[in-house]
Amino acid sequence: MIEHFFLEERQHIEARLKSIVETLTGPQSLLDAIDYSLQAGGKRIRPILLLATLQGLNKPLQLGYDVACAIEMIHTYSLVHDDLPAMDDDDLRRGKPTNHKVFGEALAILAGDGLLTHSFNIISRLEDISDATKIQLLQRISEAAGPSGMVAGQVADMEGEGKILSLDELEQIHHRKTGDLLGVSLECGAILGSASMETIAELSAFGKHIGLAFQIKDDVLDVEGDEESIGKPVGSDAESDKNTYPSILGLEEAKEKLDYHIDAAKSHLSNLPYEFGLLEEIADFIKNRTA
Amino acid sequence: MIEHFFLEERQHIEARLKSIVETLTGPQSLLDAIDYSLQAGGKRIRPILLLATLQGLNKPLQLGYDVACAIEMIHTYSLVHDDLPAMDDDDLRRGKPTNHKVFGEALAILAGDGLLTHSFNIISRLEDISDATKIQLLQRISEAAGPSGMVAGQVADMEGEGKILSLDELEQIHHRKTGDLLGVSLECGAILGSASMETIAELSAFGKHIGLAFQIKDDVLDVEGDEESIGKPVGSDAESDKNTYPSILGLEEAKEKLDYHIDAAKSHLSNLPYEFGLLEEIADFIKNRTA
Repeated sequence: MIEHFFLEERQHIEARLKSIVETLTGPQSLLDAIDYSLQAGGKRIRPILLLATLQGLNKPLQLGYDVACAIEMIHTYSLVHDDLPAMDDDDLRRGKPTNHKVFGEALAILAGDGLLTHSFNIISRLEDISDATKIQLLQRISEAAGPSGMVAGQVADMEGEGKILSLDELEQIHHRKTGDLLGVSLECGAILGSASMETIAELSAFGKHIGLAFQIKDDVLDVEGDEESIGKPVGSDAESDKNTYPSILGLEEAKEKLDYHIDAAKSHLSNLPYEFGLLEEIADFIKNRTA
Repeated sequence: MIEHFFLEERQHIEARLKSIVETLTGPQSLLDAIDYSLQAGGKRIRPILLLATLQGLNKPLQLGYDVACAIEMIHTYSLVHDDLPAMDDDDLRRGKPTNHKVFGEALAILAGDGLLTHSFNIISRLEDISDATKIQLLQRISEAAGPSGMVAGQVADMEGEGKILSLDELEQIHHRKTGDLLGVSLECGAILGSASMETIAELSAFGKHIGLAFQIKDDVLDVEGDEESIGKPVGSDAESDKNTYPSILGLEEAKEKLDYHIDAAKSHLSNLPYEFGLLEEIADFIKNRTA
C-alpha cells in the first residue's frame, strides 16, 4: 500500500512542481536552475507526510498538493544552498551534479532565493482555503524554516563540525535542521484537514520523532549501507569527522535509539480517533529503508 | 519637513529592527550576522515610502512599522546575497565591510536566508490587522521579491554584464530589481491604510517611476558625484563596463530621463483626493540627492 501511495503521489507532486515553474516569468536560466533541482528526485518525504495526514483524516488529497509543493520547494532551496562551495561544497546530490555545478554559484544562490520566496507566494494564493487557514500555514512554515528553525539548525550544524558534541547538542541540531520542517509537513496536513488542536499536536510530535529517526537511519546507513543504494561512499561521515549518532553512541545503541523514536512516533498516533495506517507504514519505511 | 521625517522614522525603524532580531532564538553568530547588516545604515527609503503613504492617507504610522521592517529585511537580504563573491564580490557596502567579509560566506548566505524567511513570519503575525489584509500584503510582497520580480531582475542584471543593452532591456531590469520592491512599499502602505483600488494603483505607479528615477540618479552620481559622499570611487560603472543610463543615453539625456520620471511620478499623486506632500518631497529628494 505504501509503495503504491509513494509512487503515485510522487508523480502528482512532480507534475505539480513542473507546472508551478511554468507560471514564473523570470529569465529562462533562472527557471531552468529552479526546475533542475525541483526535478532532481528524492523521496519527497515531506509532501508524502502531508498527503498521508490528509488521507488519515479522510480528507481529499487535492486539498494538500499546493502546500506540499511549497514545502518541497523550501526543502529544495535548503539543499541547493547547503551544497554551495561556501557550505558543504558538494558536487553530487542523488548521483547528479549539484545545482551550482551545472548553473554556476550565482544562479544557484538566486534559484534558492527564488524557490524560498515563491513558496510563500503559493500559500498566499491558495484557492478555496480561508485566509485564516492560509495565515496559520504561513506562520508555522515560516517559523519552522526560518532563523529560529531550519536556518538555525544549519548554522549550528556548521559550527559543530570538528567539535565533539553531546547527544543533546546533536539532537537539537537535527530537530531544527530536519525535524522542524518534517513536523510542519504533518501539521500543515492537519491544519488543511481542519483537525483539532489536540490532533495537530500529536501529529507534530509524531513528526519530530520520525525526523530524528530519519536522521539516525541516515547516519546508520553511512556506516553499514550499500554504496550503490545510498549514492555516496560508505564511511564518508567518519572520514570527515562528522558528529553522528553512531560516533556518539556506537552503532548498536544508535540502532536502539532509532527503534525508540519509531515506537515513540507511533505511540502519538494511537491516541487519536483516526486510522493513520499510512503514517505508521511511513515510520516503518524510515526504519527499514536501505537508501 | 522631509529631513525631520527621515531622521525620526529611520530611528524608529532601526530600533524596531533591533527588537525583531532580539526575538530570534538561533545561534548567536547567526543573529549577529543578521543584526550587522540590518544596522549597517542606508537610506531606509522603502520603509520611509511606506510610512509617508500612511501619513498622506491620514492613518497612524504605528500601523506600518512591522511591514516596513519586513520589507527592509527583504531589501537587506538581497544586498547581502548580491555582495557575495559569486555575485558582485563587493568588500564594502556603505563604507563598511560586507557581511561575508565579517562573518564568512556561509553565514552570509544563511543570514540572508534567515532575513528573507523571517520577513514573511513577521507579516503573518501582525497584530490588529485582518487575515485578509495580511494575505494581500504577503501576495504582493512575495511576488515583487520573487523569481518573477526582484530575483529575476538580479539574474537579468548579471546576464546583461558585458553585453550592450537597449534602453528597454535596462529599464526592464531596473523595474524588477529595484522598482518592484519600491512600488510594493507604497502599495503596502496603501493596503494598510485601507485605500481604494484606484489609490493603490496610482501609488504603485508613483513607486515604479521613482524606482527608475532612483536608479538613474545612482548612475548619474557614479559619473559626476563626489567620491566621499557616494562611498565608492566615481567612474566605477564605466570601468566595469556596466550598462547604465549615461552609457546608453549620454549624461545629458540621462538627466532629462530622470526629470521625466520624477514629473511622471508626481502626476500620479495629483489625481488623488489626498495631500501626499511628503511623497512629493521624497521624489524631489531622490532627484537632488548627492549620495
